Amino acid sequence: MACHQQLLTIKTAGKSLCNITAKVENIVAESGIKTGLCTLFLRHTSASLVIQENADPDVLLDLEKFFAKLVPEDSQRYIHNAEGPDDMPAHIRTVLTKTSEQIPISQGELVLGTWQGIYIWEHRQRGHIREVFIHITGD
Amino acid sequence: MACHQQLLTIKTAGKSLCNITAKVENIVAESGIKTGLCTLFLRHTSASLVIQENADPDVLLDLEKFFAKLVPEDSQRYIHNAEGPDDMPAHIRTVLTKTSEQIPISQGELVLGTWQGIYIWEHRQRGHIREVFIHITGD
Amino acid sequence: MACHQQLLTIKTAGKSLCNITAKVENIVAESGIKTGLCTLFLRHTSASLVIQENADPDVLLDLEKFFAKLVPEDSQRYIHNAEGPDDMPAHIRTVLTKTSEQIPISQGELVLGTWQGIYIWEHRQRGHIREVFIHITGD
Repeated sequence: MACHQQLLTIKTAGKSLCNITAKVENIVAESGIKTGLCTLFLRHTSASLVIQENADPDVLLDLEKFFAKLVPEDSQRYIHNAEGPDDMPAHIRTVLTKTSEQIPISQGELVLGTWQGIYIWEHRQRGHIREVFIHITGD
Repeated sequence: MACHQQLLTIKTAGKSLCNITAKVENIVAESGIKTGLCTLFLRHTSASLVIQENADPDVLLDLEKFFAKLVPEDSQRYIHNAEGPDDMPAHIRTVLTKTSEQIPISQGELVLGTWQGIYIWEHRQRGHIREVFIHITGD
Repeated sequence: MACHQQLLTIKTAGKSLCNITAKVENIVAESGIKTGLCTLFLRHTSASLVIQENADPDVLLDLEKFFAKLVPEDSQRYIHNAEGPDDMPAHIRTVLTKTSEQIPISQGELVLGTWQGIYIWEHRQRGHIREVFIHITGD
């Protein structure tokens, strides 16, 4: 059983979802692994790794709008304000979503559904450099 | 190290949690793997894969009720309405929960706690055919 | 490819996040695995396993405060009340967060980001004995 590890670095825009599906698919193809498991791990606590609809970009806008309302940038609500009004909401948005994802590989491809895309969700107002550690095992 | 992959297809009822624990346990038993890891990946963005209480069915009703209130079916709130008033809420409910799960296997059995069951949570009003890709590795 | 499985038992305090990073790192070191994957699985439905900020303890207080408001202990809202007013909220808080986590291992160490810690989040009012099943594979 082979193992392939690679760090994927992404420059995000502020508060939005960034589709990284093609980048991950390329790394899976390069690994040469045909039957296995792809694990994605995001090395941050103010951004998320999620799988969401890849067809209508309005879905991504609605996700952002819903979370902006659910977790308001209102410094009076939080003790932790030193890093700006968007920082504590970013941690809460992260804990409500995901830091890692795992997708099986079959016949050399991720078994994503037709409408599934892999996204980094930036929760800070400004864009950041985000690191996704990719671990692929299989044959 | 052996690898076993299988697609599990489930017909859900609308907006409810469907217990798939026994089906997954059967696939683990059939794989013959005694020490390993079972990865479950749901190939959809309007349903979730979650681990929840398996004893009192009222817990499942309360989960549904909480989410119905947290993510209202109110088309005025969403831009993405083309697929019906339950579609965007379904995507939000999915992002607030999970798309995949991983459960270690020891002595030929999933190491689930006494009160843990594996569920597909249908977020659309109508039942759907849902696919769970199961990947088991180990010895 | 080697496999190391171990049960980690933690005594939590009520409604708070308990940092288990050092304990997990010790188990990874003991496993001797240099390149691989560490899977953590929490065997409960009223506590969560999350990765969060490890620097400012105020972040943990704000997380607790946000969830206390989002999922109120109000028995009128829930059908499932037999185990106390904190029980159904604990299940909801669990479904909104995570039951398992997976962290790649590189050069013998978890690839956690600088600010990431691994936490058990106790959602019940009273402390409990919680079990985390740890599964490590690699070379």
